[in-house]
Amino acid sequence: MKIAKLSNTVSLERSVEQGNMDHIITVREVIENVRKNGDEALYDYTEKWDGAKLTSLKVTKDEIEEAFSSFNPQLVQDLEEAAANIRAFHLQQARQQIDFPLEHNSYIKYKISPLEAVGLYVPGGTAAYPSSVLMNAIPAVVAGVKRVVIVSPPSKEGKLPASVLVAARIAGITEIYKVGGAQAIAALAYGTESIVAVDKITGPGNSYVALAKREVFGKVAIDMIAGPSEIAVIADQTAYADELASDLLAQAEHDRFASSVLVTTSEELANEVSEEVEKQLKKLPREAIARASIENFGHIYIAESLDQAIGAIDDLAPEHLEIMTENAEAVSQQIKHAGAIFIGRFSSEPVGDYFAGTNHVLPTNSTARFSSGLCVDDFLKKTSIVYYSEEMWKEQYPKIARLARLEQLEGHARSVESRSWDKGDSN
Amino acid sequence: MKIAKLSNTVSLERSVEQGNMDHIITVREVIENVRKNGDEALYDYTEKWDGAKLTSLKVTKDEIEEAFSSFNPQLVQDLEEAAANIRAFHLQQARQQIDFPLEHNSYIKYKISPLEAVGLYVPGGTAAYPSSVLMNAIPAVVAGVKRVVIVSPPSKEGKLPASVLVAARIAGITEIYKVGGAQAIAALAYGTESIVAVDKITGPGNSYVALAKREVFGKVAIDMIAGPSEIAVIADQTAYADELASDLLAQAEHDRFASSVLVTTSEELANEVSEEVEKQLKKLPREAIARASIENFGHIYIAESLDQAIGAIDDLAPEHLEIMTENAEAVSQQIKHAGAIFIGRFSSEPVGDYFAGTNHVLPTNSTARFSSGLCVDDFLKKTSIVYYSEEMWKEQYPKIARLARLEQLEGHARSVESRSWDKGDSN
Repeated sequence: MKIAKLSNTVSLERSVEQGNMDHIITVREVIENVRKNGDEALYDYTEKWDGAKLTSLKVTKDEIEEAFSSFNPQLVQDLEEAAANIRAFHLQQARQQIDFPLEHNSYIKYKISPLEAVGLYVPGGTAAYPSSVLMNAIPAVVAGVKRVVIVSPPSKEGKLPASVLVAARIAGITEIYKVGGAQAIAALAYGTESIVAVDKITGPGNSYVALAKREVFGKVAIDMIAGPSEIAVIADQTAYADELASDLLAQAEHDRFASSVLVTTSEELANEVSEEVEKQLKKLPREAIARASIENFGHIYIAESLDQAIGAIDDLAPEHLEIMTENAEAVSQQIKHAGAIFIGRFSSEPVGDYFAGTNHVLPTNSTARFSSGLCVDDFLKKTSIVYYSEEMWKEQYPKIARLARLEQLEGHARSVESRSWDKGDSN
Repeated sequence: MKIAKLSNTVSLERSVEQGNMDHIITVREVIENVRKNGDEALYDYTEKWDGAKLTSLKVTKDEIEEAFSSFNPQLVQDLEEAAANIRAFHLQQARQQIDFPLEHNSYIKYKISPLEAVGLYVPGGTAAYPSSVLMNAIPAVVAGVKRVVIVSPPSKEGKLPASVLVAARIAGITEIYKVGGAQAIAALAYGTESIVAVDKITGPGNSYVALAKREVFGKVAIDMIAGPSEIAVIADQTAYADELASDLLAQAEHDRFASSVLVTTSEELANEVSEEVEKQLKKLPREAIARASIENFGHIYIAESLDQAIGAIDDLAPEHLEIMTENAEAVSQQIKHAGAIFIGRFSSEPVGDYFAGTNHVLPTNSTARFSSGLCVDDFLKKTSIVYYSEEMWKEQYPKIARLARLEQLEGHARSVESRSWDKGDSN
């Protein structure tokens, strides 16, 4: 791995993909076609791009039950325990209505309610991760969303991975469709004969899926556009090189654009980790991917002080941050920007990826500066409610009318004044 | 106004603007130019599009104080009272960290912290609304955002409206720049010599501003892309036609694309309101705008029952909803989708637009189905923190490793297992 002295600012050096015009045009055509031709367009695209000739889009109850009953029972149990942990933590995020009384028996309320319907995109093939199904679906279910739907591209044989069906069932989702790509996003946003439109679309996908989500944003809500995954590790001389190397490689094996960064105050550790990474790389099944990631986006920085290291981490605003230092908890309190923080050697990132209960859908590409991981809030909406009594109105309306006239909105002033127009014997 | 029997589903019939390709290309050029040439590009565009030849972008302290001291004191007081109300309600929205203890002295935390820097776009000319400055700025300030910046296009004379400067000062904002359009959005997202980049951009703007926000989404966070404003009113025979007409016109005077919809169970009221609207229209200063809005997007629907009327409101998911019926509060509890609800004749929409304390930045174009008005949450981010003790790790890691291997992520399994590798005499 590249080792460098930590200088001024560091960055992950991966630019945000805005999408090239050709892809945007393709995606817009797909969306238009789905809006116009509904299911027919979905069947056509699925045959063309996934090689599957389907007669029905919806996964049957039997398919789900078959996947479930033939699945390794130990893994079912592991997934169920992970789901229970995720559910327990996300339940803590539930929100309460705000009741705010005003003078003269008036009030403001802030009502918090779940979205009605949410669609979850699950990538196909080897990128189908049951843990992602749990992480996306459970916050929606906990929020109280009544209808949570999964879309996922089928294999050539017209099937979805058993692990996805099992995770869906554990999360409580049984409305699942065999359709992927931009066409699935279009179907979720606008609806077809088979798929009733939803209000929000979440979940990761390839660049066409990301572009399609961008295009339908406004018609429906979307989650963040996720970039490649990344980890930063801050470590001092107390950390173990072999553990750090395995953590950096766990990130690197995701894809070639994943980024693993170590910032350490120990030059000795830097060198050891670099050697360990090479040693462990050779034994890694996904060596080619991990090696490309490490070579292009892997960095070890040597910091002059812990404070400098912490500053570098905040510049990176990494999706995942591991803290492998003395007093790791105290260090964690100094960090301003990170999607998720893992404290100490027994809390390596996979603990959170799979099991602890926090969400693994996290802000990438330095967006942890301003955004958050997926959470129950993402499936709630808030409605403000205003009630002014007659007495309150009498006291306040002249101010409101003046402010309206300051903005040259005479109609607004008249609306609030109209209540004083003589009504004869009135209620 | 057009009167019709309420049939199946109703909609506001205004499609979401995705932006035409020419505009997207222009906006991308502007953004690239600002990224490359910084302030120079800002000065050039400001001269070209706003007709103002500036030598400095930043509004001086003196300009702000001059605006403040020469402003009508009664209006200053009104704005201050409105700001106090907004502040008081938004303070109720503050969030608390979640501490979630696990077994074996382990824990999860959910830390909630403010964004560091936020930019607020304020439109220029007659569309400059001091109330919008308060509504956008105060939630950010209440959230604890340290740096809140305003950008707004100057007049030909190189000035910003006094009302905007006064509202900004009341909200506690003194970093204000004379720049508008896509170039202002680019400057906020990427930074120039004069303007340090922010983490999130909020506030309404014209279609170029909206497109630019869409383009920089990912580099920074943005608020919703607001469409034209709308109101729906649900009323029965107890409501007053003159009041309803004034409320519909208050919405219609905003712009030609604004939409005002009345759903009523009383045919008599429907006819009266239609006549009243015409009568009041003739006396409205912004008659031309309001008339265009009413003719194109104004509707009165006669419902067979209150239940049918409520169903229609949920189909519309209006930005603003006024309830002018008997038992208005009970009716409000049956509404699923609306940005803000105003109960009874003394709570017409301007009460919330200016004064009650709720936010007037609300989801338009039926997006109240899945999104919420601007609130303190929009300026907070959440970081999850995971700590597993050695005991906890020992108990859980085999499950985590199995789940990782289920996803063919061997590196993840090794990361969590690496803690058991023999370390000799270790900590």
